[in-house]
Amino acid sequence: MRSYAILGTGAIGGLYGAKLHAAGFPVHFLCYRDYEVVKTQGLRVDSIWGNLHLTDLHVYADPQKMPTVDVVIVALKTTQNHLLAQLIPPLLSENSLVLVLQNGLGIEDEIADWVDERVLGGLCFTCSNKRAPGYVHHLDFGKITLGEYRIDQQPSGITPKLEAIAADFSQAGIPIEVLPDLLLARWKKLVWNIPFNGLSVVLNATTDILATHPETRALALALMREVQTGAAACDRQISDEFLAEMLEATVQMKPYLTSMKLDFEAGRSLEVEAIFGNPLRTAQKLGVHLPQITVLYHQLRFLDQQNRLNSPQ
Amino acid sequence: MRSYAILGTGAIGGLYGAKLHAAGFPVHFLCYRDYEVVKTQGLRVDSIWGNLHLTDLHVYADPQKMPTVDVVIVALKTTQNHLLAQLIPPLLSENSLVLVLQNGLGIEDEIADWVDERVLGGLCFTCSNKRAPGYVHHLDFGKITLGEYRIDQQPSGITPKLEAIAADFSQAGIPIEVLPDLLLARWKKLVWNIPFNGLSVVLNATTDILATHPETRALALALMREVQTGAAACDRQISDEFLAEMLEATVQMKPYLTSMKLDFEAGRSLEVEAIFGNPLRTAQKLGVHLPQITVLYHQLRFLDQQNRLNSPQ
Repeated sequence: MRSYAILGTGAIGGLYGAKLHAAGFPVHFLCYRDYEVVKTQGLRVDSIWGNLHLTDLHVYADPQKMPTVDVVIVALKTTQNHLLAQLIPPLLSENSLVLVLQNGLGIEDEIADWVDERVLGGLCFTCSNKRAPGYVHHLDFGKITLGEYRIDQQPSGITPKLEAIAADFSQAGIPIEVLPDLLLARWKKLVWNIPFNGLSVVLNATTDILATHPETRALALALMREVQTGAAACDRQISDEFLAEMLEATVQMKPYLTSMKLDFEAGRSLEVEAIFGNPLRTAQKLGVHLPQITVLYHQLRFLDQQNRLNSPQ
Repeated sequence: MRSYAILGTGAIGGLYGAKLHAAGFPVHFLCYRDYEVVKTQGLRVDSIWGNLHLTDLHVYADPQKMPTVDVVIVALKTTQNHLLAQLIPPLLSENSLVLVLQNGLGIEDEIADWVDERVLGGLCFTCSNKRAPGYVHHLDFGKITLGEYRIDQQPSGITPKLEAIAADFSQAGIPIEVLPDLLLARWKKLVWNIPFNGLSVVLNATTDILATHPETRALALALMREVQTGAAACDRQISDEFLAEMLEATVQMKPYLTSMKLDFEAGRSLEVEAIFGNPLRTAQKLGVHLPQITVLYHQLRFLDQQNRLNSPQ
């Protein structure tokens, strides 16, 4: 059985790590502030897939004490990614993979250097929050789409690595789909994340209102079109039908506060660079300007900085 | 001496009407909600030009009872401009002028039909608030720039009408400058109003912060450039130096809440159409898309509507 390390035992790492552990995989959890709670009281996951309370975990506060593993899962907030250069290399043996479960663009590029391109990316369509230290609440959805990174940015196709990881996740009861083109998958996820994460913070609104009010619906669609333009600059085609489906799905969803809005309300750093800055810079390098996303980017960076000035942490 | 009607005895109409009255011009003030207070207690203006308390005014609650005048001054919020078709025509005699003291674009076009093109526009560089019914506080600045409207949108040059009105205002102690091109003056005022009115509401910030924080400064400049593009579509050239000067002047100004932000906090309608919608539509008709101003337009219309849903009035 493949062994796993979970970097970041939060809403995503806690949920998927718990599922892998419960299915019998050796899983090693890295915690920072939550270490004492998880060590003494275990990890509690209230989930639509059934509740778990796991007390027999391998938990670490010190990454130096973690063993090398077959798969390192990166589930930190992207705002913590400056830590990865220290965290990941000691966990790698000769054929280890890194699986990045984060939103946004440009995440895998740096990591790929350390593992000789053995990097997968997974996009989580999951509504899950960390309620308290060692306590994750998984409210809805949960599927992962998985793709393989290539330094040349070309589609990998369906590879044996993808199939192996997908088999482990399926065995653990996690819905997973393998995709031949990670970069396309990342741009498609941005079709939702850019308008809804961004506008939820700037306009202080839930997803249902943003998707139905005529002004924000028009604006969300305009922003989606710019994501489509950015993807096209990277030779990835996203159809108009896909945009319309994403908008309609959001109308049908329960009203959510997005993860960025939850971070904002808690005074935490926003994932502005991964979700907005990197796509803008990627397009810019290819000579494509995305003016409306740029407005949102400046607004979010401003609000993020003001928010943390006013916040205790 | 020319007689004046003031439509809207608020921050602008109250200030300039009081100055004209104090200089001896016959001035007729239209009030709605404030009628009883102004009738019984007079109009109080605390001003950097000296305080006034005027109790001997011609005040009207019913526009039907007002006499015809030589000059009708429009000083309502533009959100009330649907009332003008009823208010203005009864006040006109054969050679009456209309002077519009409002921000934004496209204000004079409808009015011009009723007075056979005898319409002037004045832009007020004034920091003035209505503190309470019949009580205006004029904190800073106060100059008016005055131009003449032409249906063909061409520059009028300096006309006798402009010089006559400017002479009255000067006599009343109001700093005034006549300009040969009203449309250029309106676009130049938008260079400031679009970024600072818009961002102050969306980002809940004062002008000094918006002009100095790197994110909002970059965004303000990008929005100014789109105003410049819109003006160019109307054959009006605004220099890069002018944009830089406006930004620098805003850094140097005392920290202000913009008029749009004050309206927002009071739950009043925002002047979104005059300041954002009309410039966007004007440019659009000429084949020019202004994407970043469009973002702000949708955001403001959304916030305006949500704000009034939640507001008692």
